[in-house]
Amino acid sequence: MPKISDKAVSMPASPIRKLVPFAEAAKKRGVKIYHLNIGQPDIETPDAFLNAVKTAPVKVLEYSHSAGNESYRKKLSGYYKSYNINIDFTDIIITCGGSEAISIAMQTCFNPGDEIIIPEPFYANYNGFSRSADVIVKPIPSSIESGFALPPISQFEKLITPKTKGIMICNPGNPTGYLYTKAELEALRDLVKKYDLFLLSDEVYREFCYDGKEYVSVMHLSGIENNVILLDSISKRYSACGARIGALISKNKEVMASALKFAQARLSPPSYGQIGAEGALDTPQSYFDGVKKEYIARRDFVIDALNKIPGVFCPKPSGAFYCIARLPIDNSDKFCQWLLEGFEHNKQTVMLAPATGFYSTPGAGTNEVRIAYVLNLEDLNNAMICLKEALTKYPGRTN
Amino acid sequence: MPKISDKAVSMPASPIRKLVPFAEAAKKRGVKIYHLNIGQPDIETPDAFLNAVKTAPVKVLEYSHSAGNESYRKKLSGYYKSYNINIDFTDIIITCGGSEAISIAMQTCFNPGDEIIIPEPFYANYNGFSRSADVIVKPIPSSIESGFALPPISQFEKLITPKTKGIMICNPGNPTGYLYTKAELEALRDLVKKYDLFLLSDEVYREFCYDGKEYVSVMHLSGIENNVILLDSISKRYSACGARIGALISKNKEVMASALKFAQARLSPPSYGQIGAEGALDTPQSYFDGVKKEYIARRDFVIDALNKIPGVFCPKPSGAFYCIARLPIDNSDKFCQWLLEGFEHNKQTVMLAPATGFYSTPGAGTNEVRIAYVLNLEDLNNAMICLKEALTKYPGRTN
Repeated sequence: MPKISDKAVSMPASPIRKLVPFAEAAKKRGVKIYHLNIGQPDIETPDAFLNAVKTAPVKVLEYSHSAGNESYRKKLSGYYKSYNINIDFTDIIITCGGSEAISIAMQTCFNPGDEIIIPEPFYANYNGFSRSADVIVKPIPSSIESGFALPPISQFEKLITPKTKGIMICNPGNPTGYLYTKAELEALRDLVKKYDLFLLSDEVYREFCYDGKEYVSVMHLSGIENNVILLDSISKRYSACGARIGALISKNKEVMASALKFAQARLSPPSYGQIGAEGALDTPQSYFDGVKKEYIARRDFVIDALNKIPGVFCPKPSGAFYCIARLPIDNSDKFCQWLLEGFEHNKQTVMLAPATGFYSTPGAGTNEVRIAYVLNLEDLNNAMICLKEALTKYPGRTN
Repeated sequence: MPKISDKAVSMPASPIRKLVPFAEAAKKRGVKIYHLNIGQPDIETPDAFLNAVKTAPVKVLEYSHSAGNESYRKKLSGYYKSYNINIDFTDIIITCGGSEAISIAMQTCFNPGDEIIIPEPFYANYNGFSRSADVIVKPIPSSIESGFALPPISQFEKLITPKTKGIMICNPGNPTGYLYTKAELEALRDLVKKYDLFLLSDEVYREFCYDGKEYVSVMHLSGIENNVILLDSISKRYSACGARIGALISKNKEVMASALKFAQARLSPPSYGQIGAEGALDTPQSYFDGVKKEYIARRDFVIDALNKIPGVFCPKPSGAFYCIARLPIDNSDKFCQWLLEGFEHNKQTVMLAPATGFYSTPGAGTNEVRIAYVLNLEDLNNAMICLKEALTKYPGRTN
């Protein structure tokens, strides 16, 4: 039997999905599970998206342009202008989800062995894409006490070596919900300029900024236009995760010409997703207002409920729909598995993501979990009751 | 300005798309172009596909399972059984087009620097995926005189080094249209077994086998179940190139578990494409009979017309919808560009793919073009008239 590659052996398994067999077993026992473990919103996809797909006059479902349909890219550049991001449609390559945008950006920017600095905790799949591109992730810890604010620039500088080729951020952050301030982004701008690094920014949660706080994009930073790559997706914006439509955006012509070669090799992004996404650009503001109001209510409820549980601490996030909570537990992997295997309360339990999967520093996140507040308030209430109960019974409780 | 990666610099540009600017300029001059340069069929996507998408009761367009919807994979395993390919749904990972299946297979099987032997001419994007995975392609020439039959096994053995980890074929072949015989595949089986190599087989044209010749899949070869990876796509089967639905299929459990990790990193394949593809499995046989009849008529017409042009030779293919023709020209890249830039006949011209892009041996294919017979007979007739005229006027004609 031929041997698989070293990369395949060392490719990380999804930390969110490794608990799935335990969840399936719990369901078979008749236990209802509140899924706070994955960023799959329950919000309905806007009609403008669904109707565009339903009424599309498709006779032959053809390949699109490798960079995506021109009509979609042109209309999409208008969407970005509404966020004061001034890009031309030729600065956009439509990708198969934000995932492919990350993957193409990494291959375009980094040689095998190059280093990328990423504040941790970070979106777990950055590990997979880095491994796939043979890029070395250098994590820089952010702290739960500061709500996962940007670490001091001096800490970044300590990590910079001749191998450092880029910095990657997620803003607003998954899994932290942290929204970087203008000052933080300007400090990153100066750093990127000083060392001539690529700055990759995953901003798929820009519609989810709360408390009147300002969303500042890396595309707003002047003087580093050739360093910046914006990674985007419609998955969360329109609750259309299955569309698999994302975008790679940059003013750097060399980056775009090279990224297009990777895009051409895989021919084109999904046609129906593009049709829906183009239609969805007509979604009325009232849809987003309603969604935002709902998420703020959910966030306020969850953060309050968490901090009322003895021994639990959870900073209040200003964006996205995640939070990282510190629990009085020995090991979050064990705890999350025990919630599915060893616990139930009124035939119910809650599924959480161990924060360990969002750190690349070994041992970090062992007393933290990520909670995606993607369920309605009643379900969230039941989930919080389960968590509270569970923490009183968990054998590995630490205080 | 930060430097892009060496991989991005050396990533091959799509040979089919490099002529696009010349085609656009010709269109602007009012010239009608017959596109025989790309495998985008004009055949209508079956109603069963389109209606499944139109009537899908989607409210939230969710992520699917990373390996694809279970309902689709189960039904799909039934489709393969109709070709005597006995696989379970767990042997299937649904991918974003056949492209992603190739890309994941290469990363799963090969380390950087490993060698893969591919009979040439071969599908041009194999170069891109190999470059992306840092795999070295070792081409083994097949000859137009034999209709691009499998080269002798002794020739393969000459190329095998300690770095050789696999062989890749396309059957029926793009760009050759050649359909491998049972004897050829059994010879490959023995070779693969002898050296314990992976055998990757791209069989996306299995619906397009002509003249009663037998389609033999690598999945039919016994004794090498752990070596074989089938790469598939619905793009041509249902004329649904824009769906971006393919599949990676293997009985090798280690390969499948590793491939799933790559699939999990990118979350899921497109949902609408899967819905359509699942619906399309109910397409009546009459659809395929009609399509096949049409392609046979087109093939017969084109091959006959080509061989009637003085100085042209084109073997008759038994599968797919491509042929490689040898022309009396100095340089196929120059000729195909000249067809768009320097030639027109009654305000019409034809766009072909230079065969050079399908060879990785430098200098090979300079007097060959690939023709995709994806247009109706009237258009094909006009295209052949253009080609015949062009060859009488081309300044670089060689005999």
